[in-house]
Amino acid sequence: MTLEAPLPPGSTIGIFGSGQLGRMLSLAAARLGLKTHIYAPTDSESPAAQVSDYFTTGAYDDLGAVTKFVSQCDVITYEFENIPAATAKVASEIKPLRPSAHCLDVAQDRLTEKTFISETAGVAVAPFNSISSEYDLRRALKRLGGACVLKTRRFGYDGKGQALIRNENDITEAWKKLGEHELIAEAFIPFVREVSVICARGADGTIAAYPLVENDHQNHILHTSTAPAARDIGTAQSLAIQIMEKLDYVGVMATEFFELEDGTLLVNEIAPRVHNSGHWTQNAGCIDQFEQHIRAVAGWPLGSSTPTHSVTMTNLIGEDVKNWLLLANQAETYIHLYGKAEAREGRKMGHVNRLSPL
Amino acid sequence: MTLEAPLPPGSTIGIFGSGQLGRMLSLAAARLGLKTHIYAPTDSESPAAQVSDYFTTGAYDDLGAVTKFVSQCDVITYEFENIPAATAKVASEIKPLRPSAHCLDVAQDRLTEKTFISETAGVAVAPFNSISSEYDLRRALKRLGGACVLKTRRFGYDGKGQALIRNENDITEAWKKLGEHELIAEAFIPFVREVSVICARGADGTIAAYPLVENDHQNHILHTSTAPAARDIGTAQSLAIQIMEKLDYVGVMATEFFELEDGTLLVNEIAPRVHNSGHWTQNAGCIDQFEQHIRAVAGWPLGSSTPTHSVTMTNLIGEDVKNWLLLANQAETYIHLYGKAEAREGRKMGHVNRLSPL
Repeated sequence: MTLEAPLPPGSTIGIFGSGQLGRMLSLAAARLGLKTHIYAPTDSESPAAQVSDYFTTGAYDDLGAVTKFVSQCDVITYEFENIPAATAKVASEIKPLRPSAHCLDVAQDRLTEKTFISETAGVAVAPFNSISSEYDLRRALKRLGGACVLKTRRFGYDGKGQALIRNENDITEAWKKLGEHELIAEAFIPFVREVSVICARGADGTIAAYPLVENDHQNHILHTSTAPAARDIGTAQSLAIQIMEKLDYVGVMATEFFELEDGTLLVNEIAPRVHNSGHWTQNAGCIDQFEQHIRAVAGWPLGSSTPTHSVTMTNLIGEDVKNWLLLANQAETYIHLYGKAEAREGRKMGHVNRLSPL
Repeated sequence: MTLEAPLPPGSTIGIFGSGQLGRMLSLAAARLGLKTHIYAPTDSESPAAQVSDYFTTGAYDDLGAVTKFVSQCDVITYEFENIPAATAKVASEIKPLRPSAHCLDVAQDRLTEKTFISETAGVAVAPFNSISSEYDLRRALKRLGGACVLKTRRFGYDGKGQALIRNENDITEAWKKLGEHELIAEAFIPFVREVSVICARGADGTIAAYPLVENDHQNHILHTSTAPAARDIGTAQSLAIQIMEKLDYVGVMATEFFELEDGTLLVNEIAPRVHNSGHWTQNAGCIDQFEQHIRAVAGWPLGSSTPTHSVTMTNLIGEDVKNWLLLANQAETYIHLYGKAEAREGRKMGHVNRLSPL
């Protein structure tokens, strides 16, 4: 289904997923007088369910429950990319799904994603090979330059489902760990930094691109994002827009890049949704990524993506959140917590945005 | 009850009232990982109920229902000042009530309020008299300079419960309109502008004062607020703080003033809550009045109240809200809608904040 006109206030946006991204999307929708209906297999104490208008508990592959949920909404979006293809298909037959089922298809599978980005959109990625056997992997290792990263094609996040292969000796163990999955091998890239861009594309094709973000990871989990990053010459935004246009994308998309020593940018991956490396926009003095996504999927015009401050976002992982009182005492520090009861190790509990002059 | 320590994330703030102020308080609390429980005689489609964690429908004078509600919360606050005294008393015996029952007492009744402000806090107000009869009113009119405003002592808002008496000939009609209520007559002040200040006072007595706001009313309803106002010399903030300290106030308080030609400020009224003339803070590049109030009542440290932009807030009254698409297209314009289904005449449906450089 396509949406004929912008959705008026009071309309309901359906969201698959009830984590912190769904929560912040719901809060942004509420500011605009739009309602949200969350669909997730979790309970009503989950982060997004706490602040949304409506909540349905259901499995993502329960097509009956999905059909009922979708019928009660005016447009459908999602906070994570692992929606089953059949579910996306059913949803998009009943109501507009934004971004589309095709965008989900592309982003769900690293092989499809890298093929689309490099061949269809013409944007550079690290050399890669599809891997179906240990023999494939041995051949690919040579072709990819003697070191590579073996990754599951689906469901990987925060470094999960990955193994670094430094040389032939690492193959057996990597295969033992991941061999049962569909796999892709990517050349090991000696990057100097990891950067990303958050861009929104409206239903009418207009674009709002935020400045380049520099990201630092700890234990494979995003730790800090700083924006605007130094040496932002607009290339990353142009490449991201090129991909979005080929996807006929509607909504916010994150594009992660490796930057090489000579300044070359290679796309690492795209996320068809709001993204942790865009949380800094909430206190940057412009329309934030959450409102921008809501505006896009509701068919509203996009807002300004030009920040008036420099922002460093720091994730609060696990027990970090216990410093809430210390953080509340810090100047120019904006706290965002996700309403999660239990501070488990590695769990994203919240983040802070710290401002400084541009 | 008093609160011994700052409330940790996951705690529940009870709020009397389910309008737009409660809605924006709930959204601010959610950002900080705090839950809200709304108590109001309205239904679950009311503005605050839509976005809060818990909602109880009950009459404000149903002490049984109030007791149950209060017991389920960690601290209690309110979005409007007409909580019955008995309800405030019951609530404050079970859990901390912030601002206190004493603050409510003072602010609910224009006579008590003006007496407290002028005599206890030592801050100037327009000359006033208690009015119990038409005879009182005739005498007061002379004493107050030949013109006055007759007001109900309780429950007035947006110009309701008021009559302007320009001379003796207006007395009979004003008395017919309002004579059945407890009344106060206030001297008619030839002010040059109406200004207000929003200040927060923390549980530890620290203060966060926002810049002076200039307010324009249309049909007795606030139409626009602009901040920082020209000629902000800090006097209004000092006077507001003087009142807050005498009240041992905790939370956000709005103080409205008449400014005379010679610069003299007379307090018109105080509101023991977040206030329409503080909505501009949401997009001013500092901690907004809603988060500031939540921080104060939860015992958290206050945040910065120093804006980085100038902001003009314009209310969307009744059918104004039908311009939502036009407004969404305007640069530097932030939309806030309240989730009200029906755009009745005179009803506050939302507001926009328009930014300009300081």
